Amino acid sequence: MIRKVLIANRGEIAVRIIRACKELGIQTVAIYSEADKDAMHTELADEAICVGKPKSKDSYLNVSNIISAAVITKCNAIHPGFGFLSENAEFAAICEECNIKFIGPSSKTISIMGDKSRAREIMKKANVPVIPGSDGIVENIEDAYIEAEKIGYPVMVKAALGGGGKGIRIVHSKEELENAFFTAKSEAMANFGDDTIYMEKFIVNPRHIEFQILGDEHGNIVHLGERDCTVQRRNQKVLEEAPSSIISSVLREEMGKAAVRAAKAVKYYNAGTIEFLVDKYGSFYFMEMNTRIQVEHPVTEMITSIDIVKEQIKIANGSDLSFSQEDVCIKGHAIECRINAENPKKGFIPSPGKIEFLNLPGGNGIRVDTAVFTGYKIPPTYDSMIAKLIAYGKDREEAINKMLRALDEFVIEGIDNNIDFQIDILNNEKFRLGDFDTSFISKEFNL
Amino acid sequence: MIRKVLIANRGEIAVRIIRACKELGIQTVAIYSEADKDAMHTELADEAICVGKPKSKDSYLNVSNIISAAVITKCNAIHPGFGFLSENAEFAAICEECNIKFIGPSSKTISIMGDKSRAREIMKKANVPVIPGSDGIVENIEDAYIEAEKIGYPVMVKAALGGGGKGIRIVHSKEELENAFFTAKSEAMANFGDDTIYMEKFIVNPRHIEFQILGDEHGNIVHLGERDCTVQRRNQKVLEEAPSSIISSVLREEMGKAAVRAAKAVKYYNAGTIEFLVDKYGSFYFMEMNTRIQVEHPVTEMITSIDIVKEQIKIANGSDLSFSQEDVCIKGHAIECRINAENPKKGFIPSPGKIEFLNLPGGNGIRVDTAVFTGYKIPPTYDSMIAKLIAYGKDREEAINKMLRALDEFVIEGIDNNIDFQIDILNNEKFRLGDFDTSFISKEFNL
Repeated sequence: MIRKVLIANRGEIAVRIIRACKELGIQTVAIYSEADKDAMHTELADEAICVGKPKSKDSYLNVSNIISAAVITKCNAIHPGFGFLSENAEFAAICEECNIKFIGPSSKTISIMGDKSRAREIMKKANVPVIPGSDGIVENIEDAYIEAEKIGYPVMVKAALGGGGKGIRIVHSKEELENAFFTAKSEAMANFGDDTIYMEKFIVNPRHIEFQILGDEHGNIVHLGERDCTVQRRNQKVLEEAPSSIISSVLREEMGKAAVRAAKAVKYYNAGTIEFLVDKYGSFYFMEMNTRIQVEHPVTEMITSIDIVKEQIKIANGSDLSFSQEDVCIKGHAIECRINAENPKKGFIPSPGKIEFLNLPGGNGIRVDTAVFTGYKIPPTYDSMIAKLIAYGKDREEAINKMLRALDEFVIEGIDNNIDFQIDILNNEKFRLGDFDTSFISKEFNL
Repeated sequence: MIRKVLIANRGEIAVRIIRACKELGIQTVAIYSEADKDAMHTELADEAICVGKPKSKDSYLNVSNIISAAVITKCNAIHPGFGFLSENAEFAAICEECNIKFIGPSSKTISIMGDKSRAREIMKKANVPVIPGSDGIVENIEDAYIEAEKIGYPVMVKAALGGGGKGIRIVHSKEELENAFFTAKSEAMANFGDDTIYMEKFIVNPRHIEFQILGDEHGNIVHLGERDCTVQRRNQKVLEEAPSSIISSVLREEMGKAAVRAAKAVKYYNAGTIEFLVDKYGSFYFMEMNTRIQVEHPVTEMITSIDIVKEQIKIANGSDLSFSQEDVCIKGHAIECRINAENPKKGFIPSPGKIEFLNLPGGNGIRVDTAVFTGYKIPPTYDSMIAKLIAYGKDREEAINKMLRALDEFVIEGIDNNIDFQIDILNNEKFRLGDFDTSFISKEFNL
């Protein structure tokens, strides 16, 4: 039985996990870097242990120090949160070897899902729709023409080792293909030292819809419905909601079943998320699986009344899921705004520093997940997200109105923040109508 | 249609009402005393108007200034909150005369329910159980003996004009009656200038159970289940929960029906509460009706997902109730702890002053209703309650554990508070077993 958990993370997600443990009567050990000596997660845990210097690689990514901390404090489980080591298969494997329960899926599953082309193959076999593509390398321009016809324009020409938007070209018609193919190839060579190219369909203006999965270690898997994470800035989620305004109950059932098939195909257990793109015709395509708790998990908790972090711990304890798919009932609407220490007027540049005054919103239907307080100094070293504000209402309109009044009450002095930007999103007519896609922020705000 | 509401109150309940109005798109006007110039309710409302000096009688009870403020700012409704003018029939009548909608029941209903003996008569007629009693004045000791036999010992001898515990005697047997009767009479004369005496049954160690009522102006009335407000110190509620651990679904239905009958008997509309005493045999007795929103309304909101303050406004707008009794569904368990600026170690003496540092708890299932913040100066003039902490869980045990971890996170520096006292209550074995009555605090804590 899990009796003492080391939380291998910081900030609000570390606090979130400590809270769940406390409510379950489980002891907690926080780890902290030298920059986080006075952080809230360090304060709230039953014990806290310094694992290194501020830089992540020296502390929150320092596997040997973290494992040592767990051993010294006699923890028999580690919760990785999100980011940092949460999707590091090797770390999960080391935990397994040290007889420390890793609160997450098996290292093998993490490893499989981390390999995008392997994951794609498994999904295809499991009858989960994937983005149509070349299924491998496109050797030359002749093959490129053949693949493009097969996939259907628009297509993407992508470097196999690509990333950060480099080595990618979008091709809208046959005429553009040759030029795009060779430009992508040379860009790939220049940036990654490898000009291997593959192709896939370019989904025009999709919605980003993800399904929350919970599975126990005995093969039972359910989904908790979808989250709509379409509102993004440069592939960073800004605001999430559940349910999605574009997902009908029929589509929810279909996508949910696909998500469960996806998870079953890799014998998934614990909490995970299947990310899909949904085009304007309601077709959906598997994008990737996140093998960890997500930042935006609270919106699902609000509409299902299921505490996902507690379920993670119960699952890691070997328990059967205490509910079936039929028991999962979606009620109301929830929105999460990520509150970041950044300046939207200056290119969203991070704004670390001291919070001189903080007033958190409250009242009916408002949840705040944060690790900051009046007087807290935000270190420059980590992610700029400092709070998650969640509003729950009986429907989307009520949730939006609740969120707006809560953002209006939220006061953070001393640093820049994106509260006004979130207010602008919520007041945007297209957002209110539910008429938006992943290009929403760039189009509506010229960003 | 209500388009602009004056909130005739202060503190967290004023903030609560402003929040509901904002979410409904209704303009708000705060009133404030000179002591509340920088208060949160003053800040959050669209407009704010000073109505007098700090003393309540000069400001929050100053009817002419409040009505003037409403007229000047063109408000077409007033929400009285609780306390202050909320159960003042004359104030409600003045609002009605000025064509300002009083968000509450009619002045006539307030007046009827404010007269305890009249209310008792109406309840008896409506077949709502009342505490057995003399049904009027007990003229002499001979009649007292006859009444006591009829009612059954133990009985209470009470001054008709009594209050504050004066002019009351509990009589356990015939032998004690004569002495108690004449002592109560002389105490009544000395304190109230009137020695009129009546008698009623003394309910031994009851639970204090109240039913939330919502009625529209067209005769539809529903109840939202009960709240258990048994944990009291000197008749002041300290911690409330819903549902009650002693109320079976059968008893809930029976008491709920009685509560609806009680409300119907006085053509009640808007939100109200029927307070009952429940003895150890499950018999219940009408105590009184509160014709306003209650401090502890959030626990009902959590378990029913009904926003009572919004419903009050919709009802005052003339709308039909949007749900029927069958639609009211109780799910989960909620507890509210009243957080007071007071010192439990020094007889609960109020502790006004500056809050040097405040950290509010948060996370899944935690709601905070407050109007204080870091740097806020609590004036010595008003009630010592500065926050309400509400925890919601799937059952009573989860709600208790959640509340304990939230109280643990709650930091208020600069003033004394009752957080540790609330923790002691929640950790008390009898409380956890649900085995307590109104004598709980005095017995368990020698208070």
